[in-house]
Amino acid sequence: MSDSEGPVKARKSRRGGGRAGRRAAGGAPAEIVPYITRNIPYYEVLDEEGLALIEANAETILEEVGIEFRDDEEALQIWRDAGATVEGELVKFPRGMCRSIIQASAPSEYVHHARNPARNVVVGGKNTAFVPAYGSPFVYDMDKGRRYATIEDFQNFVKLAYMAPSLHLSGGTICEPVDLPVNKRHFDMLYSHMKYSDKPFMGSVTAPERAQDSVDMCKILFGDDFYDENGKPKTFMTSLINANSPMTFDDTMLGAAKVYARNNQACVVTPFILAGAMSPVTVAGTAAQTLAEAMAGMAFVQLVAPGAPVVMGSFASSISMQSGAPTFGTPEPALVLYVMANLARRLGVPFRSGGGFCGSKIPDAQAAAEAANTLVPTTLAGVNFALHTAGWLEGGLAMGYEKFVMDADQAGMMCTLLKGVDLSENGQALDAIREVGPGNHFLGCSHTQANFKTAFYLSPLTDNNSFEQWESEGSKTMEQRANAYWKKQLSEYQAPELDPAIDQALIEYIERRKAEFPDSNI
Amino acid sequence: MSDSEGPVKARKSRRGGGRAGRRAAGGAPAEIVPYITRNIPYYEVLDEEGLALIEANAETILEEVGIEFRDDEEALQIWRDAGATVEGELVKFPRGMCRSIIQASAPSEYVHHARNPARNVVVGGKNTAFVPAYGSPFVYDMDKGRRYATIEDFQNFVKLAYMAPSLHLSGGTICEPVDLPVNKRHFDMLYSHMKYSDKPFMGSVTAPERAQDSVDMCKILFGDDFYDENGKPKTFMTSLINANSPMTFDDTMLGAAKVYARNNQACVVTPFILAGAMSPVTVAGTAAQTLAEAMAGMAFVQLVAPGAPVVMGSFASSISMQSGAPTFGTPEPALVLYVMANLARRLGVPFRSGGGFCGSKIPDAQAAAEAANTLVPTTLAGVNFALHTAGWLEGGLAMGYEKFVMDADQAGMMCTLLKGVDLSENGQALDAIREVGPGNHFLGCSHTQANFKTAFYLSPLTDNNSFEQWESEGSKTMEQRANAYWKKQLSEYQAPELDPAIDQALIEYIERRKAEFPDSNI
Repeated sequence: MSDSEGPVKARKSRRGGGRAGRRAAGGAPAEIVPYITRNIPYYEVLDEEGLALIEANAETILEEVGIEFRDDEEALQIWRDAGATVEGELVKFPRGMCRSIIQASAPSEYVHHARNPARNVVVGGKNTAFVPAYGSPFVYDMDKGRRYATIEDFQNFVKLAYMAPSLHLSGGTICEPVDLPVNKRHFDMLYSHMKYSDKPFMGSVTAPERAQDSVDMCKILFGDDFYDENGKPKTFMTSLINANSPMTFDDTMLGAAKVYARNNQACVVTPFILAGAMSPVTVAGTAAQTLAEAMAGMAFVQLVAPGAPVVMGSFASSISMQSGAPTFGTPEPALVLYVMANLARRLGVPFRSGGGFCGSKIPDAQAAAEAANTLVPTTLAGVNFALHTAGWLEGGLAMGYEKFVMDADQAGMMCTLLKGVDLSENGQALDAIREVGPGNHFLGCSHTQANFKTAFYLSPLTDNNSFEQWESEGSKTMEQRANAYWKKQLSEYQAPELDPAIDQALIEYIERRKAEFPDSNI
Repeated sequence: MSDSEGPVKARKSRRGGGRAGRRAAGGAPAEIVPYITRNIPYYEVLDEEGLALIEANAETILEEVGIEFRDDEEALQIWRDAGATVEGELVKFPRGMCRSIIQASAPSEYVHHARNPARNVVVGGKNTAFVPAYGSPFVYDMDKGRRYATIEDFQNFVKLAYMAPSLHLSGGTICEPVDLPVNKRHFDMLYSHMKYSDKPFMGSVTAPERAQDSVDMCKILFGDDFYDENGKPKTFMTSLINANSPMTFDDTMLGAAKVYARNNQACVVTPFILAGAMSPVTVAGTAAQTLAEAMAGMAFVQLVAPGAPVVMGSFASSISMQSGAPTFGTPEPALVLYVMANLARRLGVPFRSGGGFCGSKIPDAQAAAEAANTLVPTTLAGVNFALHTAGWLEGGLAMGYEKFVMDADQAGMMCTLLKGVDLSENGQALDAIREVGPGNHFLGCSHTQANFKTAFYLSPLTDNNSFEQWESEGSKTMEQRANAYWKKQLSEYQAPELDPAIDQALIEYIERRKAEFPDSNI
């Protein structure tokens, strides 16, 4: 819009530069905001007594029921050495043992380094970082429908994440490139994150040697910067170590965790729970079990490498008690989220949970309502690492192009919410009220003129025009506007600079490693 | 579903009794829950210092800027008698005057009586009541599109509100029946609420004599029950007295307020604010102005009739600083909502705000996201009277059939959220965790069997089936399922019983009054 006219007149938006220009401006602030430090309180649903009860129950689970560490003799020996009781593969822990191991060495926050240092994310404390969804074998867009994801889709989503000012990482397995062999696709995924974005990213966890490849590629990407001045690796990846709930860790995840911990890379230890299937149907039961499993996993990481960054994760949703299908965006998991965030703060570790979950197959009203019903609690609860913020469809089976940009827009709103209330003199605006007085309007007053550009979050996707104007522009749904938006974004994408020598070294590493063993889909 | 099979097997839902039966069961609990008493804390964004600052600024506005009371000499005389300074129509208040008038006599909560006493709503305290949207001249459904509302639409929405277990009033001007003359449609609207629902409702505010008709019709409907044992009218209506922000009340609203207050009917005093037009563009400025206006209005009601129920209202949204169009579901109004709820609690009066706002013209993803971004704050902030919860489209210009049932479903989720975390032994579920143990599943355990029917909120509208099953059922959007749902609801509607003598008396009153003056559209 032309600044000289100011905001006074409501004007028709034009199909050309007008709307497009405004939307681009709304979506992409010039200044990089690498993560958000909250200026609003946490929302907490339980009091001290309730939280202490859940913590005590978690200790009871660790002491009496135990956690299985499967197919990993080294892990069992680590636990024996630490003083736990090992019965076969079942480990039982004296009350308080896991908590004290974690609190003795786990950092309360850490810096996740990006190749653009302006994008380094401080994970933990009062900070929130929004991260794309993770792990879908399918993609969906309104033009081509639902289909298996490819490496091209993967690259597209990395580009969209890079361009979204409210997403702070480019993600991890942003979708599964199923056109590539299972045992080699991690090379191409990591390369995509390194090449097409300069935001922080996540490493491979599907096998210990793939975790090692992730570390080795970071050594190439960061060169001398891989180590700090004391020769200790900096943290360049925050990777996803899921428990096989209930109360089980398997050798794949344990193996990846050991590689990452020994290289000072961060592990998010997440019990993956659909309440009613992997945990009891109740909020308090699910919370206690999640805490027990997460503490066992985080304590294991600290025993492997004291001081390595760990994040407490909670993925909790419910199932339909009628069909057994997973459900998302319902109220019970929101309560679990508030409780778990509180428990993580009490433990003293960063917290990962929430996102833009939905059960819907398409970016419709169900998808939007369910995502908001998770993303608002994610924001208010105090999630530090908000995985699955953008793109999630169909219970995580599909990554949606339209959903991705819709969710990123919602994350932008949450970033504004986290900034809280400006109580400065300008924020109080008493002079504006004095200037305008009863019965007049504020559109042209000097305070409005001075503040209108930054006063309100500007969505690139919503339509607030009159019915008649909206109709004359084709009666488009949000989904249709989102479809146009992601295509425009991709058409305007420009890659961040990458030193050609590093690029070449990465390509050579990948070619060499790929030649060392045959393709396999296991 | 058949109980004998339990929840263990995920089964295909059938098009016939299976799904329909479950959905009906999910949507309509046998037991009446007339309102929700929260068991979760309030979410508060400002601390004592911030709240005190806003309160001080509101007093400054009342003292220095003042509030206009237009075209109502009686109102000005009331203010003179109370000790305010009256300059023309502008009233200025000594600091603390309005607050102390309110706190001297306004009740902190009151019973809004319904003709079915099991549906009486206690407004205030820790209680929340969800109420349909209000005032739209248009209606929208997917079959017929957008069109002017009629009395048939009005009746349909009253019926849908009556059938929705999570809506606690049938509303007020649930849409404008524009097929009836402006000066007589209030008779038909009130009659519809009285006839087609037994939930509480709201009265007419568009002229003092229409407020009096509302009171007189309640006298017929409630008969001897209109007065309590001391001869004082009970409260049967909670009606909407809007300020003409900024800082103005007009004679229409003041006239209606006087009628209601003198009959002990509740007034919701609501500054209607689009920040940037009727208030400053900032959260703190909007909150201070809203508090000032609402306090002046509530104090006026208390001067007219000490002890008459008043509710502090806040309708705050923002405008697009690019086009001037109102915007909804954005983060700044959510912050205003949290602040205002807190200020109402400190003042000691019930609070009205929020709902299911959106700027979208249709029940799409924009509508759903924006509604959720308002309804979750409505719930967490502690709104007592959540007007506009269901049906709101297009910035309030249209009442949507699909949106109505989608919003009512979301309100159901909020009711579950408000219940909080069950910390009973059954809620803790330690025995279930002991019984199941590591690596097994909870689907068939005795705790799940005992709790599965009530464990999770069951939406009648969301689809959580597999992609293949969803596709085989026609790839329906949430909007399409909502379309089928409201039609099914209307087809199954059964009117609550109404004493035929009372019904006849109401009809006769309306016929007599309608004959007393000519139709007019003013």
